[in-house]
Amino acid sequence: MKPSIPQGTRDFSPVEVRKRQFILSTIKTVFELYGFQPLETPSMENLATLTGKYGEEGDRLIFKILNNGLHEKKDADKAKLNDEWSKLLEKPYSSSVVTERALRYDLTIPFARYVVMHQNELAFPFRRYQMQPVWRADRPQKGRYREFWQCDCDVVGTNSLINEAELLCIYQQAFDKLTIPEVTIKINSRKILSAIIEYSGASDKAIEVITAIDKYDKIGQIGVRDEFIKVGLNNSQIQRLEYLVYFLMKDSQNIIDVNGRNVRAIDRVEEIFIESNIQIGIVGLNELKQTLNYYDVIKNENWRNKIEIDFKLARGLNYYTGIIMEVTTGAVKMGSIGGGGRYDDLTGLFGLKNLSGVGISFGVDRIYDVMEELNLFPEALETGCKVLLINFGGENELYSLQILKQLREANIAAEIYPDAAKFDKQLKYANKRKIPYVMLLGDDERNNKTVSLKNFTTGDQQTLSVTQSLNILQHE
Amino acid sequence: MKPSIPQGTRDFSPVEVRKRQFILSTIKTVFELYGFQPLETPSMENLATLTGKYGEEGDRLIFKILNNGLHEKKDADKAKLNDEWSKLLEKPYSSSVVTERALRYDLTIPFARYVVMHQNELAFPFRRYQMQPVWRADRPQKGRYREFWQCDCDVVGTNSLINEAELLCIYQQAFDKLTIPEVTIKINSRKILSAIIEYSGASDKAIEVITAIDKYDKIGQIGVRDEFIKVGLNNSQIQRLEYLVYFLMKDSQNIIDVNGRNVRAIDRVEEIFIESNIQIGIVGLNELKQTLNYYDVIKNENWRNKIEIDFKLARGLNYYTGIIMEVTTGAVKMGSIGGGGRYDDLTGLFGLKNLSGVGISFGVDRIYDVMEELNLFPEALETGCKVLLINFGGENELYSLQILKQLREANIAAEIYPDAAKFDKQLKYANKRKIPYVMLLGDDERNNKTVSLKNFTTGDQQTLSVTQSLNILQHE
Repeated sequence: MKPSIPQGTRDFSPVEVRKRQFILSTIKTVFELYGFQPLETPSMENLATLTGKYGEEGDRLIFKILNNGLHEKKDADKAKLNDEWSKLLEKPYSSSVVTERALRYDLTIPFARYVVMHQNELAFPFRRYQMQPVWRADRPQKGRYREFWQCDCDVVGTNSLINEAELLCIYQQAFDKLTIPEVTIKINSRKILSAIIEYSGASDKAIEVITAIDKYDKIGQIGVRDEFIKVGLNNSQIQRLEYLVYFLMKDSQNIIDVNGRNVRAIDRVEEIFIESNIQIGIVGLNELKQTLNYYDVIKNENWRNKIEIDFKLARGLNYYTGIIMEVTTGAVKMGSIGGGGRYDDLTGLFGLKNLSGVGISFGVDRIYDVMEELNLFPEALETGCKVLLINFGGENELYSLQILKQLREANIAAEIYPDAAKFDKQLKYANKRKIPYVMLLGDDERNNKTVSLKNFTTGDQQTLSVTQSLNILQHE
Repeated sequence: MKPSIPQGTRDFSPVEVRKRQFILSTIKTVFELYGFQPLETPSMENLATLTGKYGEEGDRLIFKILNNGLHEKKDADKAKLNDEWSKLLEKPYSSSVVTERALRYDLTIPFARYVVMHQNELAFPFRRYQMQPVWRADRPQKGRYREFWQCDCDVVGTNSLINEAELLCIYQQAFDKLTIPEVTIKINSRKILSAIIEYSGASDKAIEVITAIDKYDKIGQIGVRDEFIKVGLNNSQIQRLEYLVYFLMKDSQNIIDVNGRNVRAIDRVEEIFIESNIQIGIVGLNELKQTLNYYDVIKNENWRNKIEIDFKLARGLNYYTGIIMEVTTGAVKMGSIGGGGRYDDLTGLFGLKNLSGVGISFGVDRIYDVMEELNLFPEALETGCKVLLINFGGENELYSLQILKQLREANIAAEIYPDAAKFDKQLKYANKRKIPYVMLLGDDERNNKTVSLKNFTTGDQQTLSVTQSLNILQHE
C-alpha cells in the first residue's frame, strides 16, 4: 500500500512549520499589544450550530462526522427505532448514517456560540483572537485547501468606532512587522453601499447588485455592467449606480486618498445623499470619516502602508452591516490577504440580541505564499539545530557526549550523530539538515580537551577550547 | 436554540489557552535544544491509512468523515455504480454512506506515513516533534476527552541507545522547567519482559501476561495473580513469574535504584537469564545498562527527578520492542503524564522495512491538571493586557487615544474602554479582565499633560508624567 494524504490537505515540513509559526506569532504579538485575548474552540461543533449559517452552498461544504454508534446510548436507541420503522415499512432502513457533529467551517460562528454560552462570565466588550484550522469540502485547487488556518480578532459588545480604527492599526502594524511591501488597506461601509443602491432605485435587487460589484476585481467595469443587465436593472438604474461608481473611479483613479487629496469626491457623494434624503448614506459617510479621524490620532507615523476609501469594496455576501475593510498587496498577483468589518447581530443567531461586533481576519496561507515568493522570511527559520557533533565512536563518542552536555547547558541547540557512521555520511546528514556548524571530536581533540569547529557555510575549521567554541556558537 | 458543544470537547478560555501554550512552548524549547524539528500533518487522513493500526477497539473509536458527494467526481461514479448494483440485486443500496477520510487518532501513524512518503527527501536519522490534537470516539469521562492534544518526539533510522538516553534527558529537563515535583521516570525493556515470560514458560500467553502485569498499578499484586490464574497459567508458571517480579519488588521496594543501590537484583536477573540461556533477556539487560550509562554522561547534575528501573512496566499492548519508559508524579493522584519507547518496524506498515525508531509522548491534558492542582503556572499568565485607559469622552477621549498610541509604541499591551461609559462600569471591566493597571485621563491630566496611574492590586494612585508612567509599566 502506497500511502497518501486526502486531496486538499497538506503535510507541513519542519521549515514550513517554522515559517508558518513565524507568521502566526508575529500577528499574535500585535493582537496582544492591542489587548486582545486568545480563545480556542473545539474542531467539532454540533451540526445544528453550523447548519443554516453559511448559505445553501456553505451548508453543502460542511464536513460532517459519522457518529460512532456503539459508544452512545442515544445512537443505539435511534438504531433500534430505525429497525422498528424498517419492519413497519417492510424495507431496509440505513440506521448507520447518523451525523450530529461537523468540523468547524470558520472561526466566527464558534466565537458567536462561545459568547452566547459564556455571556454571564465574560467581561464586555469582549476582545478575542483565535488562530485555528477550519475545514471546507471545497473542490481543491491551487491555493485553496480543505484544511486551512484562519486567524481572526473580534470585539463584541461595543458600537464605538475606536474599534474600527484599532483594527486598521492592527493590520498596519502586523503587515509592517511581516515586511510585506505595497500593502493597501481598502475601507468602505455597507451603509454607503446600501445608500448607493437605494439612490439607484435597485434596493429590491440589493443582493444581486452587491454580488456584481464584488466581482469588479475579476471582471472589470464592463463585466459588472453586464451583470447589472443580467439581473434585470434598467438603464436609469445602471446610470445612477455608475454615476457614483464611475465618478469616484474617474476622479481618483479608483481610489480616494485619505490625506485630503480628492476629498471632493466624498463630498459630492454626501451632497447626493443629502439631496436625495438617504439617511443611511449620511450615517455611513459620517462613520467612515469618524473612523479615519480616530485612526489618524492613534496611527504610528512610520507605517508604510496606505489606507484607501474604495466604494466598490463589498466583501461578498457576508453578515456585515457597517464599516468593511480588505487588504491587498501590489507586490504579488494574489487576492485579498485579509478582510473584515462590523456586524450588528451575530450572536442573535443563538438568541443573544443587540450585541454589535467588529472583526478582521488574516489570510495565513496567502500571506505565506506572498512571503515565500518575495523571499521575506528570516533566514534563521531555515535552520533548527546549530551544531552537529560528528561521532567517531568508542572513547571519542564518550568525549563527544561530554561536550554535547555542555553545549545544551549553554542553551545551544545541538545533536550528536547517534552512530559512528562513515564521516561522509555524517557530513551529508548535516548538510541535508542545513545545520550550520559541525564539531569534530577525535583522538587529538579528546587528548587535548579541545574541539574542532567547522563552519559549514564558509568551510573554515578552527581548533578551539571548549569555552571558545561555546562563545562562538552562542553569539553567531 | 440554546447553543452547546459536543460531548467530550472543550472551549479554552483566554487564561486556559495561555496556560496550555505555556506547557507546549516549554516542551517545544527542550525539543529544539535537542535538535528535534517540528512537523505538522493534516487533521484528516485517508481511512485506509488509519484502519487496522490500532486494534479492533481502536478501529471502532476512529471518527469517520462523510464524503461530500456533490463535490467529487469519484463519488458520483461510485453512487452510479451502487445504483446499478442495486438494480441487479433488486434491493436498495445506500450510496450516501461513503467515508474515505477520518480524523487523526494519534500522531505516530501519521508520522510513519509521512516518513514513508518523504523517504527520499528526508535526512536520516529523522528527528521530529509534533504537537497537535487527536480525536477518539471514546466514552467521555473525567479527564478523558474526544479531542485532546498529543505532544510527541521521535527519531527513526537509528538503533543507537544514545537516542534513548537523550529522551530520558528531554523528560528530565522538560518536567524540571515545568517545576512539577516528585517526578519519577520509570524505565524497562520489552525484551526483559519477554525474557521473564520465556523463563516462566508462558510465551504462548505473552499478550495476556503483559496485559495482566500492565494492570499492576490498578489491581496490585494479588489482582495480577488472579489475572494469571484467569488466563490459565499453572502454578509453576506463576511461581517463576512471581519469583522474578517479587524478588525485585521485595528487595528494593518495587524499585531498583540506578545509582548502585540494589544492583544485586539486576545482577541476579542476569544470572538467571544466563543460566537459562535466554538471549533476549541478556540483550535487554545490556541495552538497559548501556542506556543508563549514556544517560549518566549527558545528564545535568541539577535535575531533581529520579530514573528508576521497573520490571513491571509494560506500556500496554503497544508496538514497542525495546526500551520503554513512563513518567509519573507522586505529588498528585493521576496516571502517567508521559511515556514512550523503541519500536522496530513502524514504517513497515507502509512498506518501508527495517527502520527502527524510538519516541516519547507528553500527556498535555494531565500535565495541565497537575500544574493547575499544584498552582504551578506563573502568575503572569493570568493577565494579558497591562493597562486600561478609562474613557471620559470628548476632548479627554482624544487625549487618551494619544496616550494609548504612546503606550503601544513603547510595547506595552494596552487598551482603551471604547465608550465613555460610567466610571464604575469601566473599573468593573478592568477588574473582571484582571488588568493590573488603569489610567485616568480627565480634564486635569489633559491640561497638565500628565496621567493618573492606578495600581489595581494595591489601590495606589499616582499622578505622573507620560514618560514616568511608561517607565513604570515597562518595568513592572
